Amino acid sequence: MERKPTATLLLSCQDRKGLVAGVSDFLFRHNANIIHADQHTDQEEGIFLQRVEFELGGMDLDPEQIGPTFTPLAAEFGMQWQLRFSSERCRAAILVSREPHCLIDLLARWTMGELHMDVASVISNHPDHADMARHFGVDYHHLPVSAETKPDQEMQLLDLLDDRKTDLVILARYMQVLTEQVVNRFPNKIINIHHSFLPAFAGARPYHQAHERGVKVIGATAHYVSIDLDAGPIIDQDVVRVSHRDTVTDLAQKGRDLEKIVLARAIRLHLDHRILVYRNKTVVFD
Amino acid sequence: MERKPTATLLLSCQDRKGLVAGVSDFLFRHNANIIHADQHTDQEEGIFLQRVEFELGGMDLDPEQIGPTFTPLAAEFGMQWQLRFSSERCRAAILVSREPHCLIDLLARWTMGELHMDVASVISNHPDHADMARHFGVDYHHLPVSAETKPDQEMQLLDLLDDRKTDLVILARYMQVLTEQVVNRFPNKIINIHHSFLPAFAGARPYHQAHERGVKVIGATAHYVSIDLDAGPIIDQDVVRVSHRDTVTDLAQKGRDLEKIVLARAIRLHLDHRILVYRNKTVVFD
Amino acid sequence: MERKPTATLLLSCQDRKGLVAGVSDFLFRHNANIIHADQHTDQEEGIFLQRVEFELGGMDLDPEQIGPTFTPLAAEFGMQWQLRFSSERCRAAILVSREPHCLIDLLARWTMGELHMDVASVISNHPDHADMARHFGVDYHHLPVSAETKPDQEMQLLDLLDDRKTDLVILARYMQVLTEQVVNRFPNKIINIHHSFLPAFAGARPYHQAHERGVKVIGATAHYVSIDLDAGPIIDQDVVRVSHRDTVTDLAQKGRDLEKIVLARAIRLHLDHRILVYRNKTVVFD
Amino acid sequence: MERKPTATLLLSCQDRKGLVAGVSDFLFRHNANIIHADQHTDQEEGIFLQRVEFELGGMDLDPEQIGPTFTPLAAEFGMQWQLRFSSERCRAAILVSREPHCLIDLLARWTMGELHMDVASVISNHPDHADMARHFGVDYHHLPVSAETKPDQEMQLLDLLDDRKTDLVILARYMQVLTEQVVNRFPNKIINIHHSFLPAFAGARPYHQAHERGVKVIGATAHYVSIDLDAGPIIDQDVVRVSHRDTVTDLAQKGRDLEKIVLARAIRLHLDHRILVYRNKTVVFD
Repeated sequence: MERKPTATLLLSCQDRKGLVAGVSDFLFRHNANIIHADQHTDQEEGIFLQRVEFELGGMDLDPEQIGPTFTPLAAEFGMQWQLRFSSERCRAAILVSREPHCLIDLLARWTMGELHMDVASVISNHPDHADMARHFGVDYHHLPVSAETKPDQEMQLLDLLDDRKTDLVILARYMQVLTEQVVNRFPNKIINIHHSFLPAFAGARPYHQAHERGVKVIGATAHYVSIDLDAGPIIDQDVVRVSHRDTVTDLAQKGRDLEKIVLARAIRLHLDHRILVYRNKTVVFD
Repeated sequence: MERKPTATLLLSCQDRKGLVAGVSDFLFRHNANIIHADQHTDQEEGIFLQRVEFELGGMDLDPEQIGPTFTPLAAEFGMQWQLRFSSERCRAAILVSREPHCLIDLLARWTMGELHMDVASVISNHPDHADMARHFGVDYHHLPVSAETKPDQEMQLLDLLDDRKTDLVILARYMQVLTEQVVNRFPNKIINIHHSFLPAFAGARPYHQAHERGVKVIGATAHYVSIDLDAGPIIDQDVVRVSHRDTVTDLAQKGRDLEKIVLARAIRLHLDHRILVYRNKTVVFD
Repeated sequence: MERKPTATLLLSCQDRKGLVAGVSDFLFRHNANIIHADQHTDQEEGIFLQRVEFELGGMDLDPEQIGPTFTPLAAEFGMQWQLRFSSERCRAAILVSREPHCLIDLLARWTMGELHMDVASVISNHPDHADMARHFGVDYHHLPVSAETKPDQEMQLLDLLDDRKTDLVILARYMQVLTEQVVNRFPNKIINIHHSFLPAFAGARPYHQAHERGVKVIGATAHYVSIDLDAGPIIDQDVVRVSHRDTVTDLAQKGRDLEKIVLARAIRLHLDHRILVYRNKTVVFD
Repeated sequence: MERKPTATLLLSCQDRKGLVAGVSDFLFRHNANIIHADQHTDQEEGIFLQRVEFELGGMDLDPEQIGPTFTPLAAEFGMQWQLRFSSERCRAAILVSREPHCLIDLLARWTMGELHMDVASVISNHPDHADMARHFGVDYHHLPVSAETKPDQEMQLLDLLDDRKTDLVILARYMQVLTEQVVNRFPNKIINIHHSFLPAFAGARPYHQAHERGVKVIGATAHYVSIDLDAGPIIDQDVVRVSHRDTVTDLAQKGRDLEKIVLARAIRLHLDHRILVYRNKTVVFD
């Protein structure tokens, strides 16, 4: 079934009466058909957050007029807001190190039409996956990195991301820590998959840590990358049972299935503009 | 934290533009603060369903005026609708046969304040749980049943439910099939817990059926009771892994944990007016 | 860590005293180091089933002598038994129709070393995945099928499986029903992934059936193929939560993640000789 | 179905050839019927651990002779071992503070025959649950505690546990930290339920911590109590999904269902002698 063109409005502001009525009345007056509306009020903080998706067909405004026409209302309520169109496709860079399972999984989903984005580039500090990328018809960039070349490599990385007009960076088991410079260029636009149930086992070798501690469940966490390592806003998490019979290798194998699924879910939520970030947490309108 | 008095509007109608705006504008004009709004459009069927919860404090209408004032708008859109107030407490009857795990679990949750209802009666075809009911301070009614006395027992049951002004009937492992007469008196107001993942293993002895088939996962299903046995609208389901090591007795024991949780979740959703039924399916606004 | 060469003994017989002692004594006398031993007694049926994995290094028997030397003991207890060596690699055929997600997932796992088998062939009734197979370095055979050509196509299929010395047939979303002739040639050697939580929604279009019934959880089932459609011994199952918001397309997308994982787990259990079948059920020593 | 009297042997030692054969041969020579045997070898540490359950009926040894007769074999292999009989019933003390959900759940399970133990006492620093205990027919002891009375209260606690011949202490949401003196008296015999997915959110107010961090999954952990707070060997864990809609109160409510189930599972594993502890981890033969 072909999806009709839609726009999605994501907004947040101080909670007050008339917000829902104001937004829905605006859309109704311009003859928009709302197909999804979801909202959340953080009672403690007094913050209102909303996602509204509506069809463009039949509206008395052209898509480029919607934003400017909405601005006065937004100003009245002091809203932070974004407007996204289903016709825009996110341009994603996939960064990967040696382990290819997340990369292959994402490319396969993308080929099958699960991810509404363009894969602008695949970038790796290893040459291993060039053939794979080529098979799926995407560009592969090998940017090797060592302690000495790290600043230089990051510069190349930034240039490449810019050059490809990247607006989403996916760390698909990319084992390098990004510096502040890169992180700040893409606020809430870098999605990482960490192979533990954060905040447990942050940092290096989480499966080794989990094995050492003897946990009975392991997890994976997709989160936006912030300056603090493994401490950014969590988008999604999932877990799987393990036992004393599982070696570190077994944990890594079971964990890979989690990593693939949790990362893909987080990307899909991002692409559908279902995530709002505030106070280092996410509101996920699913 | 004390919850402020609210009202909840549940409505469904043919989908068309202006529905969301119409309802939110109505509430805004009467100075209501919307604290939750959720909606669903069944695109295939063209049906719109909505739940709106709003605070009563500050409104320019008394609670009893809200319904009549809303009626013209509802008529205009051809809505089916219900209006519920958080100050009303559902009056529940809990029906149980021999196995008490769901009964005890519900009474414990109720005592701890998890279930916002009055337990109007506990009714059983066995005398076993009278002390338990008494301990929790609720009335216990023993209505024995046999093939010959069944019609008579159902009459007593109906009288008792009426007498106690019952508006929710909970079948907490009640092993008697209710007749059409009782079912029709409480449309979408009888919640049953079936000890399988429906539609698999409907009917009698589901754990025996599951063991015989050699499944690796068992489930439990909470559903509204309709005339067709185990075929009413599903409210919630959950599952747990099992293995060849599990005997039928083990399945029953693992299953009991599911039954308790799934039944309690379904009741809570019902009490919070989060469930809309259409075409033998539920929309659950959670 | 390189795994040392091992052998695995799978056996079943009428339960009686001395079985465990008999087998472990046999292995001890021949200086084998047992690294895993698991057993199960079906008390109702009086059947004993065992899996023992032991290192070949240090034994006073050559691998090819173990079977003949064990035969008298097996005869004494009336055992059905198989002996497998970790050095043997299963030769698998992967059959697939249009949807490639399971195929790609299996090939990716195989490339990463998760599946200890040779992919002897990829066979499809469609030409679509030839490039994919080639990319992973495996042969692709297009065997188109229509109502008239079905008997002929099955003959070609059997020839191809024979020619490639196939000993495991994986139905990775292969949408054709295999005839008795093929099924009987590979008893407990054909693994299918069915996209529902069997026995619910057997047959065609399970996601449509699930949507129609309004279930809150969907599943996937990996099973050995028997003559009765979707009724063979279940190897593994898993589920994921869904809601009224999920269309049939959403169910199919969520379900694909289950299908990939459950199929891969079942194959791994089969390759590690962890599955024993009796009375149309499996004992899985995991 | 009445269970026949059995004994369970739990042992661990340095791994070497002949262990399995030695034990099974011993049992066979004394005419025991093994009904479950499970083992685990920690390859990295070179440690062998085994659980064997066997029927006493038909053996040529009286129960009290089995241990002494086994001693020479155990000495030969340098085993640490325990021998338990199904006829012995563990004498448990349940300690609880204000929240009664775990207490009620355990008493209900115990009444239904799920837990093969005697409830020797219910002990609380609050008077609240005396009636509940009485209803289920068990003794209730109110031992109030404050900063000043803590040493004295612990002394009373120890006396009470001794007096009741307690051999299992269950912390069913007991919010006092036990001192070294108590912990050392019951090594691997105190089971605590912690309301988080350890090692995440150890210490106080884990649901508040989880809410603050914005996790998408919360958990519960049953573990043996050691001197280091919340750092003892983990017996079982489980999790449930949460979202931005869940307040701290909602997390606590969802978490209670986990706590009840995970604690009950851990106790059952302990009572069935299925747990071996080594290097601050558990091997759970389930």
